[in-house]
Amino acid sequence: MRNFDINEDPHRRFNPLINEWVLVSPHRAKRPWQGQNEKIHTDTLPEYDATCYLCPGNVRANGENNPKYESSFVFENDFAAVKQEPILFEDELKPTFFKAVPERGIAKVVCFSPRHDLTLPEMELSGIETIIRTWQKEYTDLGNVDYINHVQIFENKGSVMGCSNPHPHGQIWAQSSLPTQVEKTQNSLKDYFEKNGSNLLLDYLKEELKLKERIVIENEHFVALVPFWAIWPFETMIISKRHITKITEFTSEEVSAYASILKTLTIKYDNLFETSFPYSSGIHQAPTDGESHPEWQFHMHFYPPLLRSASVKKFMVGYEMMGEAQRDITPEKSAAVLKALPEVHYKNNQN
Amino acid sequence: MRNFDINEDPHRRFNPLINEWVLVSPHRAKRPWQGQNEKIHTDTLPEYDATCYLCPGNVRANGENNPKYESSFVFENDFAAVKQEPILFEDELKPTFFKAVPERGIAKVVCFSPRHDLTLPEMELSGIETIIRTWQKEYTDLGNVDYINHVQIFENKGSVMGCSNPHPHGQIWAQSSLPTQVEKTQNSLKDYFEKNGSNLLLDYLKEELKLKERIVIENEHFVALVPFWAIWPFETMIISKRHITKITEFTSEEVSAYASILKTLTIKYDNLFETSFPYSSGIHQAPTDGESHPEWQFHMHFYPPLLRSASVKKFMVGYEMMGEAQRDITPEKSAAVLKALPEVHYKNNQN
Ligand SMILES: O=P(O)(O)O[C@H]1O[C@H](CO)[C@@H](O)[C@H](O)[C@H]1O
Ligand SMILES: O=P(O)(O)O[C@H]1O[C@H](CO)[C@@H](O)[C@H](O)[C@H]1O
Repeated sequence: MRNFDINEDPHRRFNPLINEWVLVSPHRAKRPWQGQNEKIHTDTLPEYDATCYLCPGNVRANGENNPKYESSFVFENDFAAVKQEPILFEDELKPTFFKAVPERGIAKVVCFSPRHDLTLPEMELSGIETIIRTWQKEYTDLGNVDYINHVQIFENKGSVMGCSNPHPHGQIWAQSSLPTQVEKTQNSLKDYFEKNGSNLLLDYLKEELKLKERIVIENEHFVALVPFWAIWPFETMIISKRHITKITEFTSEEVSAYASILKTLTIKYDNLFETSFPYSSGIHQAPTDGESHPEWQFHMHFYPPLLRSASVKKFMVGYEMMGEAQRDITPEKSAAVLKALPEVHYKNNQN
Repeated sequence: MRNFDINEDPHRRFNPLINEWVLVSPHRAKRPWQGQNEKIHTDTLPEYDATCYLCPGNVRANGENNPKYESSFVFENDFAAVKQEPILFEDELKPTFFKAVPERGIAKVVCFSPRHDLTLPEMELSGIETIIRTWQKEYTDLGNVDYINHVQIFENKGSVMGCSNPHPHGQIWAQSSLPTQVEKTQNSLKDYFEKNGSNLLLDYLKEELKLKERIVIENEHFVALVPFWAIWPFETMIISKRHITKITEFTSEEVSAYASILKTLTIKYDNLFETSFPYSSGIHQAPTDGESHPEWQFHMHFYPPLLRSASVKKFMVGYEMMGEAQRDITPEKSAAVLKALPEVHYKNNQN
């Protein structure tokens, strides 16, 4: 009988952040692909698009005009999934099967800059710092609203990730409840903190920095790595090195270092398949429920769908939906590929 | 202050099968869509395609020839995510963060029929019965393999669901471990059974049959409904009315009734947007670990991605990945729409 070879043999890995397993099938990336190819968008976008409802000065769906904004610009989502209006709710005794509770919240859109054509990897560091300061301000302001206990900052990039407007922007959904994934994460962080008196992610980071196998980028204050338990082919996580529970604790040096790692990571992503690389990203941090949360550690997830090329993605479908997440290459391999990519954007190289 | 109106106001619903919440935003289906449209495949497929590696008599990727099969046909996946080979594994003491365990299994492909062009809704009932009997046989045979403890039967239909060959087929991934989603379900079923001495899904079904709000189809032995906690816009679940823990317990009357509800449900799906309706479906039932599982109840999930039309799907992305599943119309609305659709396939209507 052969000995287990983690680089070759099918195996499961455990994700201690959400207590779930992932099936890893290293050999499977070799299978031929005859399935769906995504459209590749190669058209160069203009700096300003008169038909874009996110560009400065233009009219939005609700009839309002955007200001002629010059850095980042935040407004309330015209089609918010949650609403501010308070709702009267009497928790009648219903059979266990029909539990429904009204949810109050605020949803916002964050335009990264006036430029219709500049995604994160192509922005100046100062512009990315402005976005981070905007996130800090929103986390504070929204967190201060009495009924808001959680602020979810995220970005859907690329039409393959359901993004409906190419003008670079992210979103913030703030709400009363802790969303399912955040609650799972918090439970794990809490359990670990209570058992070990230390932070799960910081302890994990220490081990990763020793092994160096899955580190993609490291600077003075942040690390970008492919988690041991990653499910998406080129999934990464940015972790702050210092114990930071929320984005408002950043020093201004940390703001710069965060901007820098965001830029370098997204440049590497674009360079991978020489395309504007799609992903969903999001920040996980302490809830704004007024309690102290020493168990939390600031981190940011990147979930990119692409697997083989700019047009072939990984489908999380049948087995993954009914059974469990499954990946076709090892996180170590993905990390090595990302690490080896240049830190200069391919578009600048071609000039 | 207004009273909570479940048909209008944003709210969360609880899924007792996997202990997770879903955010429901009834009003949100009204937002305009400028995002990605899926390609619609309208080409009529031939009954036999000489270039299809699933058609009878043709050559597969591994060089083998398919037999000239006349009903359903099962073979081992040439690019299996799990392998039969036993692997020697010593569980060394590793830091909690690097838990990896080899996984042994068998992956098969089930061609539904020799016909390259016939999906479930267009097949004869007798052909669908043959598929069910094939599933029964595979559940038994695979379940009898000593190291197999779980048999996952599923189908990815349509290229938008990562299906790489239009020849109608499903898959079976059998393995040593209980996959994450199945384990969650089993834990909930067990807890409920221990507390109440009855079956969670059968008790739920009883309530649904009283309310009638979410029932799409009912026959003598099965019900198809949109679960109260559905996450996909037109998600449904087929539940057997009798307490059945696994597919091999079906009487032959139940096999026929199951074939019939499968056909009617998939006809309604095709009729919804007059397209070959994509979905991932999968059967959840008792594991094959040799223990008795009175807590289990046979059921089948359908997770279809489409939301607004044949070309606009629901994206489970940023907020959904970082926070929690979110839906744009109520399950009650979806159930009413599906229920009202004709039970005759639109293609037969046009003749
Ligand atoms: O096995 P197939 O059809 O090649 O692949 C399809 O189904 C699998 C099981 O759900 C997924 O892992 C793949 O991402 C998907 O493309
Ligand atoms: O809010 P948008 O950009 O219109 O919509 C996009 O992001 C949302 C939040 O992840 C998702 O619920 C939608 O399915 C997606 O299309």
